[in-house]
Amino acid sequence: MKSCHRWLSRFINQSTRLVPSSCGKHKNFSTERKLNVAVIGGGRIGQVHMETLSFHTPLAKPVMIVDFIEKVAKSTAEKFGVEKYSTDFKDVLKDPNIEAVWICSPSSQHSEQIKALASAGKHIFCEKPLAITLKEAEEVISAVEKAKVKMMLAFQRRFDPNFARAKQCIQSGAVGDVYAVHLISRDPAPPPMDYIKNSGGLHNDMAIHDFDIARFMTGSECEEITAYGACRVDPKIASEGNDIDTAITLLKFKNGAFCTVDNCRQSPSGYDQRVEVFGSKGLVRFGNNFPNNVFIEDAQSVRRSDLPFNFFMDRYTEAYRNETKQFVQCVLENKEPPTSGRDGTAAMAMAIAAKKSLLEKRAVKLSEITP
Amino acid sequence: MKSCHRWLSRFINQSTRLVPSSCGKHKNFSTERKLNVAVIGGGRIGQVHMETLSFHTPLAKPVMIVDFIEKVAKSTAEKFGVEKYSTDFKDVLKDPNIEAVWICSPSSQHSEQIKALASAGKHIFCEKPLAITLKEAEEVISAVEKAKVKMMLAFQRRFDPNFARAKQCIQSGAVGDVYAVHLISRDPAPPPMDYIKNSGGLHNDMAIHDFDIARFMTGSECEEITAYGACRVDPKIASEGNDIDTAITLLKFKNGAFCTVDNCRQSPSGYDQRVEVFGSKGLVRFGNNFPNNVFIEDAQSVRRSDLPFNFFMDRYTEAYRNETKQFVQCVLENKEPPTSGRDGTAAMAMAIAAKKSLLEKRAVKLSEITP
Amino acid sequence: MKSCHRWLSRFINQSTRLVPSSCGKHKNFSTERKLNVAVIGGGRIGQVHMETLSFHTPLAKPVMIVDFIEKVAKSTAEKFGVEKYSTDFKDVLKDPNIEAVWICSPSSQHSEQIKALASAGKHIFCEKPLAITLKEAEEVISAVEKAKVKMMLAFQRRFDPNFARAKQCIQSGAVGDVYAVHLISRDPAPPPMDYIKNSGGLHNDMAIHDFDIARFMTGSECEEITAYGACRVDPKIASEGNDIDTAITLLKFKNGAFCTVDNCRQSPSGYDQRVEVFGSKGLVRFGNNFPNNVFIEDAQSVRRSDLPFNFFMDRYTEAYRNETKQFVQCVLENKEPPTSGRDGTAAMAMAIAAKKSLLEKRAVKLSEITP
Amino acid sequence: MKSCHRWLSRFINQSTRLVPSSCGKHKNFSTERKLNVAVIGGGRIGQVHMETLSFHTPLAKPVMIVDFIEKVAKSTAEKFGVEKYSTDFKDVLKDPNIEAVWICSPSSQHSEQIKALASAGKHIFCEKPLAITLKEAEEVISAVEKAKVKMMLAFQRRFDPNFARAKQCIQSGAVGDVYAVHLISRDPAPPPMDYIKNSGGLHNDMAIHDFDIARFMTGSECEEITAYGACRVDPKIASEGNDIDTAITLLKFKNGAFCTVDNCRQSPSGYDQRVEVFGSKGLVRFGNNFPNNVFIEDAQSVRRSDLPFNFFMDRYTEAYRNETKQFVQCVLENKEPPTSGRDGTAAMAMAIAAKKSLLEKRAVKLSEITP
Repeated sequence: MKSCHRWLSRFINQSTRLVPSSCGKHKNFSTERKLNVAVIGGGRIGQVHMETLSFHTPLAKPVMIVDFIEKVAKSTAEKFGVEKYSTDFKDVLKDPNIEAVWICSPSSQHSEQIKALASAGKHIFCEKPLAITLKEAEEVISAVEKAKVKMMLAFQRRFDPNFARAKQCIQSGAVGDVYAVHLISRDPAPPPMDYIKNSGGLHNDMAIHDFDIARFMTGSECEEITAYGACRVDPKIASEGNDIDTAITLLKFKNGAFCTVDNCRQSPSGYDQRVEVFGSKGLVRFGNNFPNNVFIEDAQSVRRSDLPFNFFMDRYTEAYRNETKQFVQCVLENKEPPTSGRDGTAAMAMAIAAKKSLLEKRAVKLSEITP
Repeated sequence: MKSCHRWLSRFINQSTRLVPSSCGKHKNFSTERKLNVAVIGGGRIGQVHMETLSFHTPLAKPVMIVDFIEKVAKSTAEKFGVEKYSTDFKDVLKDPNIEAVWICSPSSQHSEQIKALASAGKHIFCEKPLAITLKEAEEVISAVEKAKVKMMLAFQRRFDPNFARAKQCIQSGAVGDVYAVHLISRDPAPPPMDYIKNSGGLHNDMAIHDFDIARFMTGSECEEITAYGACRVDPKIASEGNDIDTAITLLKFKNGAFCTVDNCRQSPSGYDQRVEVFGSKGLVRFGNNFPNNVFIEDAQSVRRSDLPFNFFMDRYTEAYRNETKQFVQCVLENKEPPTSGRDGTAAMAMAIAAKKSLLEKRAVKLSEITP
Repeated sequence: MKSCHRWLSRFINQSTRLVPSSCGKHKNFSTERKLNVAVIGGGRIGQVHMETLSFHTPLAKPVMIVDFIEKVAKSTAEKFGVEKYSTDFKDVLKDPNIEAVWICSPSSQHSEQIKALASAGKHIFCEKPLAITLKEAEEVISAVEKAKVKMMLAFQRRFDPNFARAKQCIQSGAVGDVYAVHLISRDPAPPPMDYIKNSGGLHNDMAIHDFDIARFMTGSECEEITAYGACRVDPKIASEGNDIDTAITLLKFKNGAFCTVDNCRQSPSGYDQRVEVFGSKGLVRFGNNFPNNVFIEDAQSVRRSDLPFNFFMDRYTEAYRNETKQFVQCVLENKEPPTSGRDGTAAMAMAIAAKKSLLEKRAVKLSEITP
Repeated sequence: MKSCHRWLSRFINQSTRLVPSSCGKHKNFSTERKLNVAVIGGGRIGQVHMETLSFHTPLAKPVMIVDFIEKVAKSTAEKFGVEKYSTDFKDVLKDPNIEAVWICSPSSQHSEQIKALASAGKHIFCEKPLAITLKEAEEVISAVEKAKVKMMLAFQRRFDPNFARAKQCIQSGAVGDVYAVHLISRDPAPPPMDYIKNSGGLHNDMAIHDFDIARFMTGSECEEITAYGACRVDPKIASEGNDIDTAITLLKFKNGAFCTVDNCRQSPSGYDQRVEVFGSKGLVRFGNNFPNNVFIEDAQSVRRSDLPFNFFMDRYTEAYRNETKQFVQCVLENKEPPTSGRDGTAAMAMAIAAKKSLLEKRAVKLSEITP
């Protein structure tokens, strides 16, 4: 019986004093080669990756941290016990010891940094987007391909246990042919107006993650997009930010699957991330994650003791760790990274098409979107 | 609005480049004093604590690992980059640099090691039990009190997000006066016969954790126990192990609360850990944890994509980390540990009373159980 | 305390020997006037209404059953103990005793029958649709208004406990302004090809119910529709039935709400009827109904013991009863029926717009659809 | 495919104009023999059975209603259109037309009425208990057996869709050998003190239903009972009512199964009725029933829109109907009723044993309890 076997193995492990399987990832690491890495950008997401690389990835060793504010670079280096820090990413290029680099700098600097790092032979883990324009992004991909370094684009949701397991179920045939995907992706509250103004719009800033997941779940490329949207949450988002805050986007994929994406800049109950994939044999679905499984039942209501995770960094903690660990492993074992630059340009093109559909009030074919 | 506030804080954090709150635990750690620790015992649970101390507790620094098998001590030291290893726990006593010690050795060695470590002025984190007999356990507690070192007993479930949140709800008054607690605690499959023979019996080996949780949830001391049990899963557990494998234990607490504990050495769907606390104002409850939230609906059934966690080390991963982190913090900040030696003897006495009730087929008062 | 009050009332009821509240609907009914009703059409849905009128609506008395097949009319009359039966609906017109009529005849006969019944002063409960064309439907409504009889159109879902409660929640302000409605409405398996050929297409046959629910939940009128669809389940539905079997329809309402409707002619796990309504203050949602609440957990899975109701007549049993009871009450108490002919034409226009959108591959405004 | 088949059958039914299966119970009923029945007792439960017999059981025809208060008897007869009413149950005995009788009179009258009805050759559906004492109950059973009439004891929970389905699952082998049954059965709020004083105590009044369900789920007879209890909800229940309001009862069955029963006279969230049956192959469980499946998610909480049913007559509506329908069917088809007088005495003996255990503070064997 499977469950017996799983359970008994712990005793076998114990009696033979083998390292238990959950620690298997560390086996012999001190004698194995560690991957020397640098992180560019000491902001929020840079801190997340530094923490994973320092404390949760025994096979990686952070050797340099870069931030254009010296105080940030220095304090981060101290915090994580990293030997070197710098305010200039070019110091990474010059250091022959550095093998792989995590790009967590402002979006506008991504393309220049990727090209330079690729030329210097560094492997690259890059936060989205690759570049500001689709044309630049294509150049970046060419540069990386030419340099024969590995590059992974950080679509962290694919590495979340729910998203990853749903995908496995689809691949195992549980759903059959995919007929429809429904994605809900709502932020708890609108970001500051400055953020919105520089976000490139809701499709580029929020929906792009869902567009990637739509490709991931359907296993197909998008053919056509119809976008509806409105400013419902805060009129300033339209008047000052020139943006929408509520959107429904309808995608048609080459394999016949349809997908709806519901985005909103506000969700009173917290960060709302749900998926349903329906097909010829059945459906898989998952709802939100909560801090615990406790329920309260009293004279008022039967309820969860807590709201869903409110913050994407709490919701996707495990996903952020998994993506970084997987890239370290890909580099050390010389494997293809699970997400590529092409995944980045595909989602970027979908965001452009969605915005175009919204503005032109018509269905837009992806074939209309060219670099 | 609360949720807005929580959400907006991320942007404030970002713009001011402060370290985000989720990383707050690492603040300035490289300049702060780290706690130098040793781990005695390189078996399964010793590995778990080594991993937490090495990778998840920036304020701790493992400096020695002890195991009576040299190969285990050496390989563990290498794996976690620990400078020193030994086959003799007395080397810990002699090392003035070591401030706190995690005891993960066989149960029979606990009392001797605690007494020696306390005399040497080391703080002690001890896996249950403190000792084999209640009398020894009392001696151990006296020794620790006399030496004025801190000691924490590892009842990890109290540090699990579900158990901890349920307790908070009770403390906040959501349940009112506690009338009844129902605990289900079933292992996926029986351990090997050798393990059973040396386990001290189901009450001592399994139910003791639930007895601690019953004290935790009721906030009271047990007054009387009636134990029923049988050998249902595997007749060898009775014939060779002289033990039961299925037990229902009924506890009466001094504050009037009743508690039922359902233990079984076998649970076909996996490790089964559930709690309900019912009282004058309502109830709190929680069920099992699963690896993900994915559901499948097809022509066969509407079901979870996966069974509950099968292995207690998967189920309580977070709990194991939390308990070790909290003890490090207690030592560094000179606070009382959240669980004490007295918690250990209380649960031990309950296990003794339960066994006595089973054998003598009558209700046993805790006042009958003396060291 | 509310719950105390509710509970105690049963003892008060008992001690004073008052009829308990759950039976309140029958109070004095034998001495009150009963509504004399006829049912036209002894098919499946006619049987459902006959059963409700005979056994669950003490204030109604079926006095005639009409079916064009004499054997059906006669056996139904016998089954429900109805005095008269006929093969000609004009016998209903002539019977002065009949006050209200349930039209369950083929769709093509509805408009003629409604007009005749209205002229004869009979109140009318009509299965959808009012008529085959929008123009006819408008004529029907005019005829009814002129005759000053009551007419209720049978959108039974509105009377289901889930749909009705969700609507109440929205009306009570729990959702705030409605931003998005998501409806899933999938049949377990395609009907016979003959049925499809005469159904008027998926939008007219299936989606029309969802279009009504979209109006019900948003409390607004539809402005624009974009329809996507495909034949995925069975190629014969396209080749022989000239229809689609899978559809995603996107609706925009005058109050700014968006709505997505997912329809499919096949759902392996059973009849799939789910609703989510999201707004400025939160969301309400409900999933499928099951025959019971039993779950099984074994070595295979954690699952429901049963699939959702497979058959719409099982799923909507209570809804069918409620709608008929409410119409009886409206007639007896001279109140406006909760659904009207206008609800019928609105949904009909939406189905026409959706079909037009699908064929012309563009967004269609409801203003384009005229009788 | 099963689901296809189920679904398609509706179209087949439609096209051939056969009566749909859900109406199958009425087939030819007007030509078949109807069972002439009487109801003794026009209180709350008498009204429930009258409603079922009048409106939901086409094969039954209530011909007499008896209540010792003439006004009640008369108004009930009018309400349900019953020809005869009486204040003396002996009128039932004299009426040769009456074939079966529903006894809903005060408990103290049951034994006399059953014996008289049995002698008169009437079939008997009796609300619990059969009699006040076990001895009387045995006499009643003998009388019924001698008279060769059918008697069914009203343990309505067995006929609830959840309880019945759980039992089926157990019988089908899903649970394997039953190791443990856990029953929770809590009333929303204490009844009036007068009711408590005459209730025979919590075990006799509340727990007896659970004792029956324990027998039902284990499929075995109880061997030994240990009862704990206290007065926690309202001190007057002890001081004036000489009763407990909170009880935990531990049952041991002959087949080795253990059972815990949690009873409380108060449950702030409503009527609380839950079951878990655990065994060698897995477990089945079910929770409470709710008026609908609607959930609300807002800034306060993720919660059910409504509390569980508060009133046992709402919770068990379907169960009450099913039991009456099944007895009618048993009589008409000359089958053994699904519950018997023996079920009544078994549960009664368990209640007596539980009370004895509570008073004598020891485990009580069922063999100690004799009529």
